[in-house]
Amino acid sequence: MKKRFRFGNPLETDAVQEKPPLREGEIPFLTQEGKELHYALSPSDIVYGLGENVRGINKRGWIYVSDCSDDPNHTEEKHSLYGAHNFILVSGREQFGVFVDTPGKVTFDIGYTSYSSLRISVEEGEYELYVIEGGSPDEIVSEFRGLIGRSYIPPKWAFGYGQCRWSYLTADEVREVAKGYRENGIPLDMIYLDIDYMERYKDFTIDRGSFPDFEELVQEMKAQGIRLIPIIDGGVKAEEGYDVYEEGMEKGFFCKDEDGREFVVGVWPGKCCLPDMLNEEAGRWFGDKYKFLTDKGIEGFWNDMNEPAIFYSEKRLRDVFEKIEDYRQQENLDINSFFAFKGMVAGLSNHPEDYKSFYHKYRGQRVRHDRVHNLFGYYMTRSAGEALERLSPDRRMLLFSRASYIGMHRYGGIWMGDNQSWWSHILMNLKMLPSLNMCGFLYTGADLGGFGSDATEDLLLRWLALGIFTPLMRNHSAMGTRRQEAYAFEEKESFRGLIRLRYRLLPYLYSEFMKAALGNTMYARPLGFVWGGDEIARHVEDQLMIGESIMIAPVYEQNAIGRTVYLPEEMKMVKFAGEAVCEEKILSKGHHFVEVGLKEAVVFVRKGRLLPLAAAGKNVEDTDWGKLELVHFGVPGDSYELYEDDGFSREMCLEGHVREINL
Amino acid sequence: MKKRFRFGNPLETDAVQEKPPLREGEIPFLTQEGKELHYALSPSDIVYGLGENVRGINKRGWIYVSDCSDDPNHTEEKHSLYGAHNFILVSGREQFGVFVDTPGKVTFDIGYTSYSSLRISVEEGEYELYVIEGGSPDEIVSEFRGLIGRSYIPPKWAFGYGQCRWSYLTADEVREVAKGYRENGIPLDMIYLDIDYMERYKDFTIDRGSFPDFEELVQEMKAQGIRLIPIIDGGVKAEEGYDVYEEGMEKGFFCKDEDGREFVVGVWPGKCCLPDMLNEEAGRWFGDKYKFLTDKGIEGFWNDMNEPAIFYSEKRLRDVFEKIEDYRQQENLDINSFFAFKGMVAGLSNHPEDYKSFYHKYRGQRVRHDRVHNLFGYYMTRSAGEALERLSPDRRMLLFSRASYIGMHRYGGIWMGDNQSWWSHILMNLKMLPSLNMCGFLYTGADLGGFGSDATEDLLLRWLALGIFTPLMRNHSAMGTRRQEAYAFEEKESFRGLIRLRYRLLPYLYSEFMKAALGNTMYARPLGFVWGGDEIARHVEDQLMIGESIMIAPVYEQNAIGRTVYLPEEMKMVKFAGEAVCEEKILSKGHHFVEVGLKEAVVFVRKGRLLPLAAAGKNVEDTDWGKLELVHFGVPGDSYELYEDDGFSREMCLEGHVREINL
Repeated sequence: MKKRFRFGNPLETDAVQEKPPLREGEIPFLTQEGKELHYALSPSDIVYGLGENVRGINKRGWIYVSDCSDDPNHTEEKHSLYGAHNFILVSGREQFGVFVDTPGKVTFDIGYTSYSSLRISVEEGEYELYVIEGGSPDEIVSEFRGLIGRSYIPPKWAFGYGQCRWSYLTADEVREVAKGYRENGIPLDMIYLDIDYMERYKDFTIDRGSFPDFEELVQEMKAQGIRLIPIIDGGVKAEEGYDVYEEGMEKGFFCKDEDGREFVVGVWPGKCCLPDMLNEEAGRWFGDKYKFLTDKGIEGFWNDMNEPAIFYSEKRLRDVFEKIEDYRQQENLDINSFFAFKGMVAGLSNHPEDYKSFYHKYRGQRVRHDRVHNLFGYYMTRSAGEALERLSPDRRMLLFSRASYIGMHRYGGIWMGDNQSWWSHILMNLKMLPSLNMCGFLYTGADLGGFGSDATEDLLLRWLALGIFTPLMRNHSAMGTRRQEAYAFEEKESFRGLIRLRYRLLPYLYSEFMKAALGNTMYARPLGFVWGGDEIARHVEDQLMIGESIMIAPVYEQNAIGRTVYLPEEMKMVKFAGEAVCEEKILSKGHHFVEVGLKEAVVFVRKGRLLPLAAAGKNVEDTDWGKLELVHFGVPGDSYELYEDDGFSREMCLEGHVREINL
Repeated sequence: MKKRFRFGNPLETDAVQEKPPLREGEIPFLTQEGKELHYALSPSDIVYGLGENVRGINKRGWIYVSDCSDDPNHTEEKHSLYGAHNFILVSGREQFGVFVDTPGKVTFDIGYTSYSSLRISVEEGEYELYVIEGGSPDEIVSEFRGLIGRSYIPPKWAFGYGQCRWSYLTADEVREVAKGYRENGIPLDMIYLDIDYMERYKDFTIDRGSFPDFEELVQEMKAQGIRLIPIIDGGVKAEEGYDVYEEGMEKGFFCKDEDGREFVVGVWPGKCCLPDMLNEEAGRWFGDKYKFLTDKGIEGFWNDMNEPAIFYSEKRLRDVFEKIEDYRQQENLDINSFFAFKGMVAGLSNHPEDYKSFYHKYRGQRVRHDRVHNLFGYYMTRSAGEALERLSPDRRMLLFSRASYIGMHRYGGIWMGDNQSWWSHILMNLKMLPSLNMCGFLYTGADLGGFGSDATEDLLLRWLALGIFTPLMRNHSAMGTRRQEAYAFEEKESFRGLIRLRYRLLPYLYSEFMKAALGNTMYARPLGFVWGGDEIARHVEDQLMIGESIMIAPVYEQNAIGRTVYLPEEMKMVKFAGEAVCEEKILSKGHHFVEVGLKEAVVFVRKGRLLPLAAAGKNVEDTDWGKLELVHFGVPGDSYELYEDDGFSREMCLEGHVREINL
């Protein structure tokens, strides 16, 4: 049961595709208190949702603000990351979902101010509200996902393993990476290109100094079964003679300041203009630019800096320099002035006032950016997705984004942003998965090994042992950090084993992903979704169901020799030493300590369920699922529904693609 | 067996009191490889130690740099915090301790570069090395602690609970806090005064505007059983007419730059000079200044900013302003220049070059600061401790510091620095405890509830449930964060219960502390110290033995209803609902899930051991341990050694103060 309410005259977001009729009168579950919506939480209530955010699967005990933010420090006190995912699901005394549809800022105070109080407030005051009733969390999620439309599905090869770095600086460095993987027998499907493949960071250019033979490189890699996936940034360099800039200026496609002049911001290329992604025409124009790369054989992209990230605005930088001059003149800088000075410089980036200083043309209206801030990355990716469908009508393309809003899930996936090589981020990676699934984002994963800071061998191994279960499986690291390609450490055999295991899991992972995407269900579920009557299961924050057959419980603590796992029912533990099963054991309901070595991965198979395994190849295409090995906790007759398709067609449905395999 | 080696001609630190004769020739366990010391770690080796640092009790898998640093972001990638504690203990295939005694920077690469390799390097190249062999970790620690001398022991009242905030701004605000505790029946022994009690942050002054009746306030609080504990900062305001500054200038007691002029740095009071804490005369002078406050009835202090923290140096600030002027003149600031500009401003504080720009007079020599950097906080606190002994020869004083080096443990405790209201910092708090104990720091604890960021009610409750076992038990929070006094939240009853439980535990905690301090043993031990043959116990990172009778296993995950606990042997679980025992249950060796509510605390009593409990009062003095309740897992005849003294005498020994109590 879905109910829709409207407050004020909100801007359309296109998040919802199937709108139920508007209702008036009382809102179920929630009460309006002034400008806030309120719900009294009972002690056992869990609040799920909010997609990409810090903290638990259960979001209770913090304030979350939907406000797409470029912040690479994902520490516990943060209120916002890159996405704005305004869906929550209350499960306990009552069960219901709430979606707040508005392109501006929304605050969810989930038991922060008072542990027993959920309060939602919308800065704009204008929004559509969806309240979804249902018997179970799964049902509520499916209802909601039905509203917002089918999740993005990438080509099958995008379920392979990818390697990224900011940056592989030359074509030869890319060749080195491919060689490193191939020589060490470690599968690889993608090498990602970060900003340095471009000529001075200009979108839709190639640095011919360092990538002189880009087109050949693309083909050479393809011949090795590896696709190159370039990055596209949200800002366009303001440089005379640069065609994208000149065209955008001519057509008036960039965001403007109050006086109607192009708003200039500093991003990677230096001074930039922001394409007005929300303007349909401008978006179409920007999307069509991807052809520059698809013409060169590129089949996938990642969209970055599209919160949009603003290192500085031209105007603010000028003001700050002037203010600094004042400070400089002061004979004696007192300590408050010193901190004001430091704070002012640190605060140059992503300044709230800058987001209030430029305008979009959105559906015919001039709209100040802050009112639609959370749509920028969404519409950039939507423009790209729609263009890629025009450019490649018969074959799916890979596309994912950093910033997002619900609705964007139809056009692309997301990665979980610029995380760090922290052990705690393995667990955060795990927790975000189901939260994102609820909000429609299925093709997702974290930068394995961590983007910022230095990784260690054991950290990357443990992270991979989780990453083999995330649809997007990418290793990525930042400039200046330790190299963390899977062949960069000593125990190459361990890396080979875990990554090959990913490829063995493909029939299962792809089937479960496709069933979730096509059936509006969850790919990764909190235990509370499955065992809602089990209070211990409901509060487990470090295990997940992946698809219907298996539960995972990764190790995320440095130097641990294993971990405690909670089994809400009897299950079969299956331990892999690399790609091969090394131990199977039936474990009773309850807590168990399970030893897990650095080269190992463990799954827990539910009774009556099967886990089909392929023979790993050097990439997805090379992986043979003609003859599947069936790991299982079943009896003859038990079955599994395997989804199979060509892996690239845009026409996808469950009908005709699901085949029952039996024990 | 303790062996001492010398490399080069190192500066004396006074860390070691009982020096064994110098040896030549081969170093046991370690091999010299160039400038490094190397040890090949076997897979099962655990490396303990390093005192105050991020990450595990087992330090394996990271690089740690001893370099006292004012860094309030205690995230996993950090290499240094406020202390420099160069003692490690390898336990596994072989067992030995290593202490690197040098006042400069030391790097411990403990399985970071290669998981199987421990490498120690000393920047100076000049150091003394102590290698300690022993049969068990406990023995090695005791041998080491014997070398470095008896740990600081505070007065008994300092084992009570204290409340701090940056800052209680007026005398009346202090009265409010006292009232908040007393009215809610929550015990309290100390209110800490942060920097705002001073006149414009000047050491040894009182802001008479906001604390007009400071002396009366001290007495008024004492009458309520509460002591005021003011902060003392490492820098002295450079202000004409300010007596401390004028005297210091006249006597030449401040650190000088290369040209012999006083080195000027910006700290809280604005421009400051740094007293040359390493100069014996200057230290004595600075220590004697504490009399200004002891004369007003003050009996305890905390020394801060003594890494020393430098917000900026006068010279660097001038240079930065000039460089900024260059940037400003650039027509088009490219992105690299922009980041250089931002980085330069952010890097103004605690800049390594500043630490190379001033000099001490240390034991007759002129020594550049960076060579003795890690001694500054130590010698500040030593000066204070020695002065307080002169000023108060008959009664112990409370004293602890932010920065420290081994050796300082004889003069004061430390708090664990400016942490954050993060759940992960509860666990970090737990992990630091035994690491610090090994290095001699027994009187220690973290800012409960977290210093930076906003706390939640559940976070503070869970943290208190650990904090009741730490010798220093203080709630502290930063300016601008949510108030987190124990009466600031809704469930006052829960706070009252947990804090009263602390007071009930005093006979045990004080006895175990005194036995550890007087006997050179550990107060808080990793499980591996006790059950060295149990591989699971050896790798437990979230439980501790506190004293001889009890194991603790606090909950540190938001929204958890309990946690899994590993029992290396049969124990009795004793659950407290607030101050009263609500459940006792014998649990078998192995893993158990234990439910723990927000108002509860759980201990696990070893077989044959006793836990004596007092009747809680409103402060330590008011707590009655005349008639002890004995919680136990024993049989008649089992006994406990209770330490009792007057709680203030400086003459302390086990003899004559230990009384056996029997079941």
